[in-house]
Amino acid sequence: MTIKITGVRVTPIAFRDPPLLNAAGIHEPYALRSIIEVEAGELLGLGESYGDAPVLAALTAIAPALAGLEIHDLNGLERVIKEELAKLPAAKAGAELAPGSQPSRLLANCFSAFEVAFLDLQAKAAGLPLHALLGGAVRREVPFSAYLFFKYERHIEPEEAPDEWGEAITPEQIVAQAKRMIDMYGFGSIKLKAGTLPPEVEIASIEALSKAFPGLPLRIDPNGAWSMQTALDAAEKLGPLIEYYEDPVAGLDGMAQLHRETGLPLATNMVVISFDGFRESIKRNSVQIVLSDHHYWGGLRATQHLATMCNTFNLGLSMHSNSHLGISLMAMAHLAAATPNLSYACDTHYPWVEDADEVVVGGKVPISGGCVRVGDTPGLGVELDRERLARAHATFNRITIRTRDDLGQMRKYDPAFSGKQPRY
Amino acid sequence: MTIKITGVRVTPIAFRDPPLLNAAGIHEPYALRSIIEVEAGELLGLGESYGDAPVLAALTAIAPALAGLEIHDLNGLERVIKEELAKLPAAKAGAELAPGSQPSRLLANCFSAFEVAFLDLQAKAAGLPLHALLGGAVRREVPFSAYLFFKYERHIEPEEAPDEWGEAITPEQIVAQAKRMIDMYGFGSIKLKAGTLPPEVEIASIEALSKAFPGLPLRIDPNGAWSMQTALDAAEKLGPLIEYYEDPVAGLDGMAQLHRETGLPLATNMVVISFDGFRESIKRNSVQIVLSDHHYWGGLRATQHLATMCNTFNLGLSMHSNSHLGISLMAMAHLAAATPNLSYACDTHYPWVEDADEVVVGGKVPISGGCVRVGDTPGLGVELDRERLARAHATFNRITIRTRDDLGQMRKYDPAFSGKQPRY
Repeated sequence: MTIKITGVRVTPIAFRDPPLLNAAGIHEPYALRSIIEVEAGELLGLGESYGDAPVLAALTAIAPALAGLEIHDLNGLERVIKEELAKLPAAKAGAELAPGSQPSRLLANCFSAFEVAFLDLQAKAAGLPLHALLGGAVRREVPFSAYLFFKYERHIEPEEAPDEWGEAITPEQIVAQAKRMIDMYGFGSIKLKAGTLPPEVEIASIEALSKAFPGLPLRIDPNGAWSMQTALDAAEKLGPLIEYYEDPVAGLDGMAQLHRETGLPLATNMVVISFDGFRESIKRNSVQIVLSDHHYWGGLRATQHLATMCNTFNLGLSMHSNSHLGISLMAMAHLAAATPNLSYACDTHYPWVEDADEVVVGGKVPISGGCVRVGDTPGLGVELDRERLARAHATFNRITIRTRDDLGQMRKYDPAFSGKQPRY
Repeated sequence: MTIKITGVRVTPIAFRDPPLLNAAGIHEPYALRSIIEVEAGELLGLGESYGDAPVLAALTAIAPALAGLEIHDLNGLERVIKEELAKLPAAKAGAELAPGSQPSRLLANCFSAFEVAFLDLQAKAAGLPLHALLGGAVRREVPFSAYLFFKYERHIEPEEAPDEWGEAITPEQIVAQAKRMIDMYGFGSIKLKAGTLPPEVEIASIEALSKAFPGLPLRIDPNGAWSMQTALDAAEKLGPLIEYYEDPVAGLDGMAQLHRETGLPLATNMVVISFDGFRESIKRNSVQIVLSDHHYWGGLRATQHLATMCNTFNLGLSMHSNSHLGISLMAMAHLAAATPNLSYACDTHYPWVEDADEVVVGGKVPISGGCVRVGDTPGLGVELDRERLARAHATFNRITIRTRDDLGQMRKYDPAFSGKQPRY
């Protein structure tokens, strides 16, 4: 039987985000997301995507046009989204987006946001968990990594209460952060966001982590903020300690040169963020591991295409994360469960989210033994808690942040901060 | 709800095949196929694949191991097939196969044979046509091309009755064959199998077709049987007349050289028949159009991965065919309907099949206006006719052919025929 879309809601929400440092600056006190609900009669499919103004405007414009589509008609979904995006004023579609969500990626972003909800509906209609629909789980326990950040103790806004994680601007504090996070979630690998403090502090942090957690795979991600010389110098010390070296320098050519000169496996979520980027990277041998992210690769099915491409070209496949909540976490987990070569532990910002800010029933999805479990509940396996959603929407309405701006936020701390890259 | 496989039947069949000439030799009087039935309670999923002894042995060995798998569990299907193939004696898995089905492709072949039946089941369980499950039809009328062959009037075996097509060993006879085929089916493009008669006859045939059918896209496929010099010489005359130049010479390097020297778009179902071949072709720029074939690319989902890869690397995507019946035709049509960039008219040998030999209810699937229509019937949209199937299985039991051997067949006509390549 055909099952048709009867209604779509897009709800912007905001949730507290700690003062996490990165190459661009620092996280603002709130992160934005869009929660997508796609109704098909009695069935409700969920999605979660960026909440920045341009994406939100596009999602909101597209939503009413989806009524009448069959829940399996992903080609129809793409057609309708293209039609609706073509109607948007160029300025709206061209404004600055969150990292990984550049304007050129708007089609892929919007498609993905709704595709996950369509797939959730398809799985619910079949009475199957989403991983079954995606080809069947090859792992029920999906490993994630401990995603460490250098951070300040509290936001510069005095009205924002401090988070529970405390300051982390030294190797010792990073090791303490890792210990706390691993005690809480059992992660079996560690990623350190870098490109923010002087490289010697960041390298020393990896060395300290390596001593504190012998045998645990370590990754470092300077987000393209290092010069070639800095990345080359760092490679000598980091090389023996890390599982992969993520975006140390900017650009396909820079990454290709760095790999030629160091032989280290380079990973990216910056120089390969689309199929076109994949092609260009293959020409240059720029990267050895691609960090997928269904939010900007065009959905779960497209990420499975990417998985086959990585297999074909002998590249590894891992997973990137932006700040997100439980709907995205479950989409990521079901995808990784059903994609055999997505075998690196996935990134997630989820430990940085406070339970009170989650919008799914029961609060935060458990991470145990470093893994998110995918079960047999039909679809994504999470439901919306309407009270929680209303609260998160009220937070969005209360705050003035409408587009992520890590650079602007950092200038509140340091008006001279230029954001010029490479930073080191 | 999980729906589990309760039983699998693999039935070898044979059907009459005209004396069609190709680079390897000539078709035998019968073509072999395997008809796959996968039962899940009340539901029956259908598949069709090669019937050559090594594939048949593998399919038959795998069949009983599939019981208990959930119909969506394609990762589980792959795992079980790998396990069962590992148990087969190497000799069995290593024997000569039909073109396009080399021993190294046995996993992909076997997976595909069952995957189509699993997808048919999934679609039937959802009450949807297969194209809906594959992302939704972007075209309901799927174009195929008129697949012309040089051929003898009748088989050398005196007991085999002549077919209705008559002899075709001159340009005039090829034009007559094309007229008849287009009158019957309305094809809007033409493919000529070549590499069998002297190149001047084959080139003259394309010239004659071009005059007789102005504006119709033409393709020629010498199956790698031409030397570089022959292919270069032919390119001067053929270049202005053809849509693409399919496998004129053998090998990835030969194709790359030919493209460099002529600039003509080269198509293949010989040098790129796997994802590994795709990677090697990209390195060399060997081909500009890949002919997919779900039977050896590992199924319909894998062919959709291939479609994304072709898009990514700016290659065209067309479709190859071996001798086949209606189940394969419908799988090909549903796939092409739901794969936007599979936009070239597909190849099919189907016009060479006699209605009496078809195994689906109602006999041969109609081709009208050059197209196969995909409708709204759940699944593939065809059902098995048990009487027809029993007849085709009886034919298989009656004949002695067990592995396709076009070379051996040609030696019955010409004992001196060497099969040495390049032939011209």
